[in-house]
Amino acid sequence: MSDEITQALEKVFSADSDLYRGRGFMRRVGFGERPALVNIDLANAWTRPGNAFSCDGMDVIIPGVQRLLTAARARAVPVVYTTTAYAVTEGPNSDMGIWHRKIPLEVLQLGTEAVAIDERIAPEPGEQVLVKKAASAFHGTNLSSFLKAAGVDTVVVTGVTMAGCVRHTVEDAIAEGFRPIVVRECVGDRVAGVVEWNLFDIDAKFGDVEPLERVLDYLDGVAPRQEAQPAIAGRAAAGAD
Amino acid sequence: MSDEITQALEKVFSADSDLYRGRGFMRRVGFGERPALVNIDLANAWTRPGNAFSCDGMDVIIPGVQRLLTAARARAVPVVYTTTAYAVTEGPNSDMGIWHRKIPLEVLQLGTEAVAIDERIAPEPGEQVLVKKAASAFHGTNLSSFLKAAGVDTVVVTGVTMAGCVRHTVEDAIAEGFRPIVVRECVGDRVAGVVEWNLFDIDAKFGDVEPLERVLDYLDGVAPRQEAQPAIAGRAAAGAD
Amino acid sequence: MSDEITQALEKVFSADSDLYRGRGFMRRVGFGERPALVNIDLANAWTRPGNAFSCDGMDVIIPGVQRLLTAARARAVPVVYTTTAYAVTEGPNSDMGIWHRKIPLEVLQLGTEAVAIDERIAPEPGEQVLVKKAASAFHGTNLSSFLKAAGVDTVVVTGVTMAGCVRHTVEDAIAEGFRPIVVRECVGDRVAGVVEWNLFDIDAKFGDVEPLERVLDYLDGVAPRQEAQPAIAGRAAAGAD
Amino acid sequence: MSDEITQALEKVFSADSDLYRGRGFMRRVGFGERPALVNIDLANAWTRPGNAFSCDGMDVIIPGVQRLLTAARARAVPVVYTTTAYAVTEGPNSDMGIWHRKIPLEVLQLGTEAVAIDERIAPEPGEQVLVKKAASAFHGTNLSSFLKAAGVDTVVVTGVTMAGCVRHTVEDAIAEGFRPIVVRECVGDRVAGVVEWNLFDIDAKFGDVEPLERVLDYLDGVAPRQEAQPAIAGRAAAGAD
Repeated sequence: MSDEITQALEKVFSADSDLYRGRGFMRRVGFGERPALVNIDLANAWTRPGNAFSCDGMDVIIPGVQRLLTAARARAVPVVYTTTAYAVTEGPNSDMGIWHRKIPLEVLQLGTEAVAIDERIAPEPGEQVLVKKAASAFHGTNLSSFLKAAGVDTVVVTGVTMAGCVRHTVEDAIAEGFRPIVVRECVGDRVAGVVEWNLFDIDAKFGDVEPLERVLDYLDGVAPRQEAQPAIAGRAAAGAD
Repeated sequence: MSDEITQALEKVFSADSDLYRGRGFMRRVGFGERPALVNIDLANAWTRPGNAFSCDGMDVIIPGVQRLLTAARARAVPVVYTTTAYAVTEGPNSDMGIWHRKIPLEVLQLGTEAVAIDERIAPEPGEQVLVKKAASAFHGTNLSSFLKAAGVDTVVVTGVTMAGCVRHTVEDAIAEGFRPIVVRECVGDRVAGVVEWNLFDIDAKFGDVEPLERVLDYLDGVAPRQEAQPAIAGRAAAGAD
Repeated sequence: MSDEITQALEKVFSADSDLYRGRGFMRRVGFGERPALVNIDLANAWTRPGNAFSCDGMDVIIPGVQRLLTAARARAVPVVYTTTAYAVTEGPNSDMGIWHRKIPLEVLQLGTEAVAIDERIAPEPGEQVLVKKAASAFHGTNLSSFLKAAGVDTVVVTGVTMAGCVRHTVEDAIAEGFRPIVVRECVGDRVAGVVEWNLFDIDAKFGDVEPLERVLDYLDGVAPRQEAQPAIAGRAAAGAD
Repeated sequence: MSDEITQALEKVFSADSDLYRGRGFMRRVGFGERPALVNIDLANAWTRPGNAFSCDGMDVIIPGVQRLLTAARARAVPVVYTTTAYAVTEGPNSDMGIWHRKIPLEVLQLGTEAVAIDERIAPEPGEQVLVKKAASAFHGTNLSSFLKAAGVDTVVVTGVTMAGCVRHTVEDAIAEGFRPIVVRECVGDRVAGVVEWNLFDIDAKFGDVEPLERVLDYLDGVAPRQEAQPAIAGRAAAGAD
């Protein structure tokens, strides 16, 4: 963005923040006791050049997510990835719904390299990749149920795009009862301005936007998890009879 | 907003639109065959001065919604209102969830005049007012089920706030499989800029932003509805025995 | 039920249980650390005679629920009631959906005495009554979000009907990530057999069916809750400006 | 089942039906205009012997589903399959939620032959297989959004198990605003009695239980679908730039 535009946005944000604070908005949702790390759409279609969905800023986002992954895994904090992909892009069984009437979903074919998670931040065995059809990681997926069953109360969010999937995920997260924390350096988009104004809206109303270093400190201080899925006492052998 | 800021935003939107269009975004979701009119949070806390939630622009929004209501009712198009209100704002049974940690929900007490729909656009008998707890009109309500059962395929959205409840509702609407149409003159907010950038994001990715006159023309042309809830043939009397 | 039928059902349950246990079904979901008490549709239409929805067994159910309420309130365990009620039973805005095509929802008018919670087990101030439109207490309501925000992991379920709203609620509870506990003496229905076979199915697959005394012991042993909604540090005054 | 037990159940059903009918229950939800065919968990773990989840009756269920598939495909009626499978069955990222504490989910490993759809009724290209984690085909999946976007109003259900996934799916279907039709000959289970009593409960309250021949007649009479996903007028090329 040009300096002129950056300055204009900062002027708006400053005036808006004054009004919000005076009215009791822009509170801190705060860090909870049991976080999960949710990485939104950091698949090749978004993280590499040459796709309709390609985003900017991966030189900062990818290393940041690498550090978050290391911190989360060290504490057995649950890690989830999402990708957006479609099995059927033509005919009466299409799983694109209405959304392809708005954006070019037809390039996001399930099973292609484009929708695979970027190998620089590849999932480890035992980490889930949720395939979603809508913007929010919660919509039409078992994310909320998974997080609840794991006792999670805080959702640390990274990824792209800020104006699309990240924002909708954060809005749903607080609606579902989780504390959303957006990592400032680890979210991006593909057009100018939208990272800034969506972070502004989120911090005012839906979740806390926090710098990477502060989130890393938080993850380092998370209490070691008791086993989320304790052994099942006295369960019968599961063999068929 | 100052002219300077307006011009800066327009410059960003123009550049962003060029990139979006080149990549196949900003398509038209289009009008469907069976619309519903959904009015978001046009209750006194938002439409009248003196509340933490008070919004601007009601001199344009209210007359616009009045015209939409007349057009919708003339065609038996379903009309839904939402308000955001809480029964319990203290203790272990609070229905504010996590969201009050971010914004001042505690002033939105269920049953008070503040959360009643503005009487200038009052619901008629037989029109529902959904009490929601989250930003989206779809979250934690039966809105989606109601619309599906009524055969609706298009959701015409008005109300406030643009950066909060209207945006989240539109994102959920397209995720749920409905065509979202946002009426340009009938949405508002309380701080500068957020109407503009959220309409921009929505029109790029989630729904069509259309002028009031065009939406009125559309509603006037909607085919008269067949009865949504046909008489139940041969049903037994429902008396207790 | 006649003895003959009771014996026939017991014979089926016994044979089925042998097969289930041999295959690893019928495990114990167990009691968690933070319960909520959810009372399904114990409103007058169900608890009193003379309504199409009237149920049997209230001489046992009501005193049992009274004891559960006392135990839960003593530990600040969240308490939720549901009722099923409709604002609009005719025309294009009906909130009955498709379900009235199956059962006589039209007698459940919102705001009538019929759908008010039975005063013998009346909610105390600060306890929520959720108005639902479908069988499950989770469907189209904010119940799941409320429970999550409150840190609940276990849902103790009472009420009616066993074959309808109680069963669907239990199925949804475990799907959402909560441990369902059904209180044996505190659920009922209006026709013979359905309590028995639905409890059998639930205990095999969806939740634990436990006797009242055991659930009371459990509630008595729940650790005093830390404040679910801690004071918001440093939040601005929420007055309008 | 023994004759004795069959007769006892029939006696209960008959008495219960009298009461239900007298009170206005057991209405017909009826066939709508735009059906979809939803086949629940007809994967090898359920359709073949030797698994903890193996079910009975496949000699009738499989041929019935074959006929339904032929009829549906001839009319471009949407066809959906589900399977239940888990990517992670150990540790803090398990996607089994709480449910494995009740039934032996750990044998349902994603990607194994056990959870693949039975090849006798294999999906054709362009038909979706939804991987679900809970009993209901609607829970944590995009099924409802898919059906809505496709304009579906009626859900024809087949599969297993009757006491588990089929029942929960039917309950959710009517709650979501779809007309559930259960095909009598095409549902099954693995223990005695549960098919009968769950069909009874469903027909009384949640959906219509219909014989295969009647459902085939209905599908044969469905109006040819207009294109569900019409060409997008004037959309830009979706190439990256």
